[in-house]
Amino acid sequence: MAKNFTYNRLDKNNAAVLLVDHQAGLLSLVRDIDPDKFKNNVLAVADLAKYFNLPTILTTSFEDGPNGPLMPELKALFPDAPYIARPGNINAWDNEDFVKAVKATGKKQLIIAGVVTEVCVAFPALSALEEEFEVFVVTDASGTFNEIAQKAAWDRMSQAGAQLMNWFGVACELHRDWRNDVEGLAKLFADHIPDYKNLMTSYFALTARKPAAK
Amino acid sequence: MAKNFTYNRLDKNNAAVLLVDHQAGLLSLVRDIDPDKFKNNVLAVADLAKYFNLPTILTTSFEDGPNGPLMPELKALFPDAPYIARPGNINAWDNEDFVKAVKATGKKQLIIAGVVTEVCVAFPALSALEEEFEVFVVTDASGTFNEIAQKAAWDRMSQAGAQLMNWFGVACELHRDWRNDVEGLAKLFADHIPDYKNLMTSYFALTARKPAAK
Amino acid sequence: MAKNFTYNRLDKNNAAVLLVDHQAGLLSLVRDIDPDKFKNNVLAVADLAKYFNLPTILTTSFEDGPNGPLMPELKALFPDAPYIARPGNINAWDNEDFVKAVKATGKKQLIIAGVVTEVCVAFPALSALEEEFEVFVVTDASGTFNEIAQKAAWDRMSQAGAQLMNWFGVACELHRDWRNDVEGLAKLFADHIPDYKNLMTSYFALTARKPAAK
Amino acid sequence: MAKNFTYNRLDKNNAAVLLVDHQAGLLSLVRDIDPDKFKNNVLAVADLAKYFNLPTILTTSFEDGPNGPLMPELKALFPDAPYIARPGNINAWDNEDFVKAVKATGKKQLIIAGVVTEVCVAFPALSALEEEFEVFVVTDASGTFNEIAQKAAWDRMSQAGAQLMNWFGVACELHRDWRNDVEGLAKLFADHIPDYKNLMTSYFALTARKPAAK
Amino acid sequence: MAKNFTYNRLDKNNAAVLLVDHQAGLLSLVRDIDPDKFKNNVLAVADLAKYFNLPTILTTSFEDGPNGPLMPELKALFPDAPYIARPGNINAWDNEDFVKAVKATGKKQLIIAGVVTEVCVAFPALSALEEEFEVFVVTDASGTFNEIAQKAAWDRMSQAGAQLMNWFGVACELHRDWRNDVEGLAKLFADHIPDYKNLMTSYFALTARKPAAK
Amino acid sequence: MAKNFTYNRLDKNNAAVLLVDHQAGLLSLVRDIDPDKFKNNVLAVADLAKYFNLPTILTTSFEDGPNGPLMPELKALFPDAPYIARPGNINAWDNEDFVKAVKATGKKQLIIAGVVTEVCVAFPALSALEEEFEVFVVTDASGTFNEIAQKAAWDRMSQAGAQLMNWFGVACELHRDWRNDVEGLAKLFADHIPDYKNLMTSYFALTARKPAAK
Amino acid sequence: MAKNFTYNRLDKNNAAVLLVDHQAGLLSLVRDIDPDKFKNNVLAVADLAKYFNLPTILTTSFEDGPNGPLMPELKALFPDAPYIARPGNINAWDNEDFVKAVKATGKKQLIIAGVVTEVCVAFPALSALEEEFEVFVVTDASGTFNEIAQKAAWDRMSQAGAQLMNWFGVACELHRDWRNDVEGLAKLFADHIPDYKNLMTSYFALTARKPAAK
Amino acid sequence: MAKNFTYNRLDKNNAAVLLVDHQAGLLSLVRDIDPDKFKNNVLAVADLAKYFNLPTILTTSFEDGPNGPLMPELKALFPDAPYIARPGNINAWDNEDFVKAVKATGKKQLIIAGVVTEVCVAFPALSALEEEFEVFVVTDASGTFNEIAQKAAWDRMSQAGAQLMNWFGVACELHRDWRNDVEGLAKLFADHIPDYKNLMTSYFALTARKPAAK
Repeated sequence: MAKNFTYNRLDKNNAAVLLVDHQAGLLSLVRDIDPDKFKNNVLAVADLAKYFNLPTILTTSFEDGPNGPLMPELKALFPDAPYIARPGNINAWDNEDFVKAVKATGKKQLIIAGVVTEVCVAFPALSALEEEFEVFVVTDASGTFNEIAQKAAWDRMSQAGAQLMNWFGVACELHRDWRNDVEGLAKLFADHIPDYKNLMTSYFALTARKPAAK
Repeated sequence: MAKNFTYNRLDKNNAAVLLVDHQAGLLSLVRDIDPDKFKNNVLAVADLAKYFNLPTILTTSFEDGPNGPLMPELKALFPDAPYIARPGNINAWDNEDFVKAVKATGKKQLIIAGVVTEVCVAFPALSALEEEFEVFVVTDASGTFNEIAQKAAWDRMSQAGAQLMNWFGVACELHRDWRNDVEGLAKLFADHIPDYKNLMTSYFALTARKPAAK
Repeated sequence: MAKNFTYNRLDKNNAAVLLVDHQAGLLSLVRDIDPDKFKNNVLAVADLAKYFNLPTILTTSFEDGPNGPLMPELKALFPDAPYIARPGNINAWDNEDFVKAVKATGKKQLIIAGVVTEVCVAFPALSALEEEFEVFVVTDASGTFNEIAQKAAWDRMSQAGAQLMNWFGVACELHRDWRNDVEGLAKLFADHIPDYKNLMTSYFALTARKPAAK
Repeated sequence: MAKNFTYNRLDKNNAAVLLVDHQAGLLSLVRDIDPDKFKNNVLAVADLAKYFNLPTILTTSFEDGPNGPLMPELKALFPDAPYIARPGNINAWDNEDFVKAVKATGKKQLIIAGVVTEVCVAFPALSALEEEFEVFVVTDASGTFNEIAQKAAWDRMSQAGAQLMNWFGVACELHRDWRNDVEGLAKLFADHIPDYKNLMTSYFALTARKPAAK
Repeated sequence: MAKNFTYNRLDKNNAAVLLVDHQAGLLSLVRDIDPDKFKNNVLAVADLAKYFNLPTILTTSFEDGPNGPLMPELKALFPDAPYIARPGNINAWDNEDFVKAVKATGKKQLIIAGVVTEVCVAFPALSALEEEFEVFVVTDASGTFNEIAQKAAWDRMSQAGAQLMNWFGVACELHRDWRNDVEGLAKLFADHIPDYKNLMTSYFALTARKPAAK
Repeated sequence: MAKNFTYNRLDKNNAAVLLVDHQAGLLSLVRDIDPDKFKNNVLAVADLAKYFNLPTILTTSFEDGPNGPLMPELKALFPDAPYIARPGNINAWDNEDFVKAVKATGKKQLIIAGVVTEVCVAFPALSALEEEFEVFVVTDASGTFNEIAQKAAWDRMSQAGAQLMNWFGVACELHRDWRNDVEGLAKLFADHIPDYKNLMTSYFALTARKPAAK
Repeated sequence: MAKNFTYNRLDKNNAAVLLVDHQAGLLSLVRDIDPDKFKNNVLAVADLAKYFNLPTILTTSFEDGPNGPLMPELKALFPDAPYIARPGNINAWDNEDFVKAVKATGKKQLIIAGVVTEVCVAFPALSALEEEFEVFVVTDASGTFNEIAQKAAWDRMSQAGAQLMNWFGVACELHRDWRNDVEGLAKLFADHIPDYKNLMTSYFALTARKPAAK
Repeated sequence: MAKNFTYNRLDKNNAAVLLVDHQAGLLSLVRDIDPDKFKNNVLAVADLAKYFNLPTILTTSFEDGPNGPLMPELKALFPDAPYIARPGNINAWDNEDFVKAVKATGKKQLIIAGVVTEVCVAFPALSALEEEFEVFVVTDASGTFNEIAQKAAWDRMSQAGAQLMNWFGVACELHRDWRNDVEGLAKLFADHIPDYKNLMTSYFALTARKPAAK
């Protein structure tokens, strides 16, 4: 069973991030994750993309209609990223500009998050797998209508060979070793994991009280 | 892991819809999805079959007995569809007329929904897979007794090669591009997704106020 | 404990319905009830108000802004009802026109539903109780952010003397006796309770098959 | 706070049981309790009524229509009980025959269970409280559409002075002392509480192995 | 993906039932399914084994100790079935007598249920798969400590090739066609599915009123 | 509303603890709290009774039968406490020895926990309230069949004037001020709240590293 | 029932805010609300206190020990607020400085939030009620171990006359009328309610496109 | 489907245990399992490692920082075990000392538990699978942020060939036969499964009463 397995692990030199359709209107459809947590998770993926300096591609569907504009925080974080406002393709991979932008990154590992999971994430994920990209789905930064839709979409992608992850796992697998930059990673975690922030608050309160001589 | 994967995506020219045993009596057995939502989902599948003009086959089991008649809305929507009132076969695929009707469509992709999931959906799904059809299960328009039955049935079908979807994913994968017909798809979504309807209500209220000159 | 209790039961000759802030934008805040079910419940309250011919008052908050327009179905159902688009009062009872409209009905029993529960329902409910109206909250046609907000709001209203009901209970208490109109009430239930509709479908299928001589 | 409290405890010489509308059709509306458990609970109430020899009154609403016939097990258990097939009154207490039957028992404590909770239980419960009966609601043998309806109905009855109980609590409060009849009560519990039955199975297996001399 | 799939469907002439360790003590460990429902499910499997006349094997682990005796209902239903009270083997398949009994049935399809899922079911299931039996796990008649244990055990068995089913699916797949015996199957369902029983109760109440001439 | 309220707060000089029917057999009936957590909570109440030196009374129901013996940990902790093995009274307060033992403590505040909540806790709680004791129910050290039974029992006791607490609240209200004994209370919390233990582990690891001179 | 009710509604000129023990260590005990949401809710209360310019009092318990320092965001927001680092009193109201600070505000309405609910919130709430303050508990900015602790604490406070609210209800009741300051309130909501922010994003995107002449 | 399956079952002579990052700080991040139960499960794995005398390796990440020290119970249980305090590698398998320690055990089966599941467990699990170890994940002694993270991590490991188990399954699969040591295994279960302890308490109470002659 464990035979011939290759651990395709995320490599910060070989990974790109695709943020698909996190639009103000579509976000109101997301009901499998609480909105406070979901917003936090999406921003965490954006921040980690920034932190690891990964090529990041933004895309939206019909943003002038009811689907609404991209979350303004994402626009602000990636002012120079390729931004494909798709005129109609539901599967971003059906849009030539999008695929061109993906291929232009030269990366073979794609970290994908989006709204809604079974469409905006699953469709390009399956298309990318067909073209032999390695696909890593950020499950907790991808949202949909309910748990049935979520579980079905996960199953479809997993069976096709996508790897299901959460943003914390992505960050850790990219970073590999705390020694590469303790403060940067700690800040990322403190900004998006209240429990981790609490640990740091308590830790620094105590260690700061130690004599300067130490 | 991502090697040799082919994305068998739904193609509106190659897909048929099978609605299995959505009968007034059997519906009272469904307890893994809330009845308001379930009814909505079943009608959404019916509406999308109609909208995409997919060959659709209706079948029932023992409809003169306690299982009860087919949901009247389905009969009304597909007055001319093949309608196989099975005299006893539990697996619809064991019924020659049913299989004949399926094959008569000439389609290789089968979109299946029914009640109850582990029987009326899973049995024909597995039979169809054996005959090399591509099977797409509409999980949220298929219902059963409880979550244990649901999860076990999904696993059995997924392991056999069926693709698990929800009705929204099916509609989007069939449509491919909003430009094929914006209004039609929007109506389908507005009719079955209250949150989407709300987005449209707000959107049109605001844009209607814009000067006619635009 | 059971001493001195008076059953203030709903009386169709003494009740009015207040529908508060069921607006397209605000509806996206409701996450303690599934959207399919919530929409159904709100329309059920509207339909019962219509059916029992109860004076009904519509009101909205800031409907030209992000809160969005009233659900169009409500506008359509009550074209001639008092409609108070409040310019700013959060508590509808702080709006003189609204209170005037309520008092103009001459009814002492107020059936209230709205979005969000702890504000748009609870505030006018508490104000009305203070003025010695009898208040009946339609809990399942009132929605809010999460279960904590819901339970806290219910407790506040219940402790103040409001009676917590659901739309089905309201309809039954108003109707009193099926013989007042079997078909009308049955239609109301069939339209909004899929399980009840199923029972009727099965029932009529069987009884219709009985010999015409009957 | 604890001042002036009187513990109105169930007294087997002063209690009657009202089973309201446990009809085959209406049971399909019950979705706040799992059907296996709900059926068991209803039969447990019936068995305890029998066991304690409490006057029991059966009533149904429109049993020739879609609501369906009374659960046959109840009919079989109480062949001689007053049975009021109400021609139309939704609140059983609005039916003179029903109230007459209740008063004919001469009991002041009413143990009520029914379907659905907010109507078939709450309405007669509130009417009975108004007439100074002591009301004990068997919450787990009363069912309704969902938890919102359940909690609202419980709150309304509790605020009016009804006591919320479950069937096990009712049986224990009526029995008072195991020594009144160990075997009878044990059988009631073994028949309706699988965990209790298991305890007895293990217990008797071990104690039976003890030397015959004992 | 659908290539080369063979639907190994249950065949009543080629299937045996293994009931593993449904003992009075061990049952108290089961907390992933409600006890009322679980007891019902276990007895449903037993009844279907009886109904389809499948060779059935009972086995227990340490039944003289705290694990307790086999559920008495099972003993009573299968007085002549092979009954292997294992002296110590945790995996029933490690017990020669058990394997001998299984092989003596001459069947290649094994329907397994037991307590607890990850041990008493999974261990013999995996052993049987290794010996090229086809394994069908009755998930809803197998119980364990919590949902984590349940899901992990299901995954392990599914990945090894076992098919996850529920008792209703098993019964339907074995029966194939209602016409083989309508009344027998209906009785099985009525005895173990309250909702189905209700449908029948309503159905027969209505059809019985039809003219005797029929 | 806030008028005339008196805060009857727990006073370690005026409180006694009643542990009712925490017996090995009855514990298997508890399904509204996970067994790991429940056992921990019961032992926490026992430890706090010991820690605050509160008079504690143990009682059991039919401990030689299937209900089984008292949890051995409780016996071991209170070797000299009054121990009333009730010969049959279901309500402990119906047992003269028990009431005598309670009154012999001379305390007016009773902290009660037991199995099952609606019987073994609620019955003596209501009896004690009637005799003008102040009753504090330890909800998380009292268990029952399911959440319906739990909520109904809580409501009955709360309406009668009992105060609903959890063991942590009881401990804090009794202790009043950490300065009365920091280490003792900290040990109680560390022993029964893993999260608190973790805080202490981290805290002491850091502060222990500080220079001895400090 | 509705007789004599006075609606004690929050008045921004008569209200003070008490933030009790939101400390980095204690926050790890909170498990009845998700940490992302909880942090957001606590900061929302702080922001509304600031926004409405309400006198605010901070207090901590043992902040140099494992309980940890106050959330740094709270310290930063209220640099000049009374800050009572209690040396040991568990009930903040037992601390003279705290009560003095409360009384110094001259307000009679106290808005309280804290960790953990049944102790740090409930104890001072009950003490304040006894001294005839009006108490408003912010349930969603108060956290505790689990739902049992939460519900028991809410019941205790509600029965004593405290009003249960959530932060959104508090903000709305204080503000009374949007016209008092549309932008300020909108910002408060946008900062803490992602769904509201989305509504605004979509709204402004559309209205900004309207002709400049407007 | 069942073809060619080999049951890689745990063998106490060929298995090692890896306990990864069960540190006081990190434990506060675990929110997919209740803390009482989680602590119990982790200690159960430790106890079974001890009981079966399996080589056990402890490792921590940054234990001098906010992550905090290893649970002291683990340190105490394995004073002589290899203990790798990783200076920075997030994936323990990236640490040479750790891999060396694993390989030094000479075992090919690795039983892994840790915090958090998707990182500290999944990363070394996938690395070990790549090197053809057999990996057994103890799901209930591994914790993470929420169920989404949990389910995604399980899927990733399962698809790679890891076997998902719980501690009870691990213990049973290692032990094989109660006769190898009844008392030892019983003690392990009694110490960590309250329900099992209860069964034993009742059992021994009854059997101890049997005549000494036996």
